Amino acid sequence: MSSIATERTLDEALDAISPLDETAMAIARRRLDALTKPPGSLGRLEELAVWLAGVTGRPDARIDLPAIIVAAADHGVTAQGVSAYPADVTAQMVANFVSGGAAINVLARTIGASVTVVDVGVRGGTWPLDDAGTGAATLVDARIRAGTADMMTGPAMTRGEALAAIEAGRRVAANATADGADVIGLGEMGIGNTTAASAITAVLTAAPVADVTGRGTGIDDEAWRRKIATIEQALAVNAPDPDDPIGVLAAVGGLEIAALVGVAVEAASARVPVVLDGFITGAAALVAARLAPGIGPRLLAAHRSVEPGHAIALERLGLQPVLDLDLRLGEGTGAALAIGLLSAACRVRDEMATFESAGVSREVAGDHNVRP
Amino acid sequence: MSSIATERTLDEALDAISPLDETAMAIARRRLDALTKPPGSLGRLEELAVWLAGVTGRPDARIDLPAIIVAAADHGVTAQGVSAYPADVTAQMVANFVSGGAAINVLARTIGASVTVVDVGVRGGTWPLDDAGTGAATLVDARIRAGTADMMTGPAMTRGEALAAIEAGRRVAANATADGADVIGLGEMGIGNTTAASAITAVLTAAPVADVTGRGTGIDDEAWRRKIATIEQALAVNAPDPDDPIGVLAAVGGLEIAALVGVAVEAASARVPVVLDGFITGAAALVAARLAPGIGPRLLAAHRSVEPGHAIALERLGLQPVLDLDLRLGEGTGAALAIGLLSAACRVRDEMATFESAGVSREVAGDHNVRP
Repeated sequence: MSSIATERTLDEALDAISPLDETAMAIARRRLDALTKPPGSLGRLEELAVWLAGVTGRPDARIDLPAIIVAAADHGVTAQGVSAYPADVTAQMVANFVSGGAAINVLARTIGASVTVVDVGVRGGTWPLDDAGTGAATLVDARIRAGTADMMTGPAMTRGEALAAIEAGRRVAANATADGADVIGLGEMGIGNTTAASAITAVLTAAPVADVTGRGTGIDDEAWRRKIATIEQALAVNAPDPDDPIGVLAAVGGLEIAALVGVAVEAASARVPVVLDGFITGAAALVAARLAPGIGPRLLAAHRSVEPGHAIALERLGLQPVLDLDLRLGEGTGAALAIGLLSAACRVRDEMATFESAGVSREVAGDHNVRP
Repeated sequence: MSSIATERTLDEALDAISPLDETAMAIARRRLDALTKPPGSLGRLEELAVWLAGVTGRPDARIDLPAIIVAAADHGVTAQGVSAYPADVTAQMVANFVSGGAAINVLARTIGASVTVVDVGVRGGTWPLDDAGTGAATLVDARIRAGTADMMTGPAMTRGEALAAIEAGRRVAANATADGADVIGLGEMGIGNTTAASAITAVLTAAPVADVTGRGTGIDDEAWRRKIATIEQALAVNAPDPDDPIGVLAAVGGLEIAALVGVAVEAASARVPVVLDGFITGAAALVAARLAPGIGPRLLAAHRSVEPGHAIALERLGLQPVLDLDLRLGEGTGAALAIGLLSAACRVRDEMATFESAGVSREVAGDHNVRP
């Protein structure tokens, strides 16, 4: 799998990322202002439609074929007892995705989205199907290694493995866009991956480890303190250079996080909008934005996770989430909900009457300020 | 219309409002905790499913037939130049609702909701149909008077008119529930009605007028100061008693706000969940909660409007909104978006696999805290 190249190199894809299309955004804004509502009164729902125009270059871009890409991998750092769940759960949940029983399957159905699960590093678990799927999800077997090494004692993976995982993500995204996906939601599964996300976020935002480290799937105070100590030790042992994002991924990242970087890069270079989910996808976004600053504006933040590092990552990315539901599941669940809002924004733009067509009076220019 | 009585009196409906069903909520919570996700990791989405169980008394309550009820009326206080739009727009927008071109029509379609528009006090405008409708919306002609009087010089309406508007709202809600509506979203249309909502909110929360008065559809500084002075004058002239919520409605309210009080009361007494929209529906909720404190927990706050009085009203009601999209349109648009989330919550509850059925390991009890 890691030998299958996308058509462009990573550098070519990064170079292809352009600023948002201001002309398309202006046209979308004019259309929204002609509709029977006070200008801007649908707030961020209107901004979503304008953003979509900017990302795609098309003022009339629609959301007809959403795709959720869930990257899955295991983490050697689970040996340090940083998670409330055994590492086996990663493989079990991948099987659950494929059989359609996970939260992301349900929420993807509510928006008519496909779900593609890409195994870039699950430990254990063998999949009966290769690049095949059920009705519920497509499974892509792109396993690069059976989970990362324990970052506390050395790099989580080699630089080559990080690059291979990025390529795997790019390939899945390229396939999705070739199949017509008009928005890609990022999701992930990997017991232990909030530890990796906290480490990445600490390096790339220069925030103290304790400020970006949370309870993950639900650890207690003692495990939380151990999680912080583990990350601090990992940063001391690996000394990742914040100006080398691939190096940061290799040192303290995760294979699924690297794959999500690849998904974001490929989608951004193809002008396909990317919807983040929670903290893990936010860490991937931090890496991607270091590789190409033009990626940031092409991302939509779905929600603000209860993981404390997420707010810090979003602030650094300049993104304001549209939902605040105290989610902390991952899998792309928040992304699916936000894609529902994006789709609603498109329908408002397309299906509302204009002041002219409906015969509704526009606002009084100035003279409403004159007292009768 | 005001002579058509619902089966119960207002007092009987208020007496029928019960506390949330704790047993149903506990069953729903157990079901959610059995699903393949860390307990509570879907945050407020899970809380929505639990809340729905409590309101309906059924742990398996679903959202199959949502109904949006939009109450419309005019406001005499528009004579004071408190709105950016001419009062004619109320009638024009009612026509727009009926022909399906308004934002609420579009957003209702995204969730499969019916839209019922009840005219309790539109000025001008005659409807070709009586209690009939188009495919886009049903129009109920229940006009009590052609807009309120100017609250700055006297009461907006009589007590009898306020009660009649409440009855009209109750009747529409009773019809909706008889038709099988399993959730009711509140919406409103009435040029000038943020002025009435600010006045009601000031009286019922004891907040200073300036703190609960915003820009409505988009007025400038001068008009905003005039709006505040108008409300202060109206409160001085009418001296509404905060312990007499019907009196407050009559003094400084609106016919559509009174109708929404009736919708909320009737739905609450029928154990049908009520989803608020923005500031105007929040003012109606404040009145309803004064009539029966048991109503508060039966309401879902959809979003936090940019109108400053809305946050104050929601805080008083003890409600935390699920969306934060800077909406300020009204019509029930935020309610429709929130009903989409409520529906997603039900599908998560019903369609996810359990740990048992999917063969996924549960969290490690305690021993994840022991370092290997």
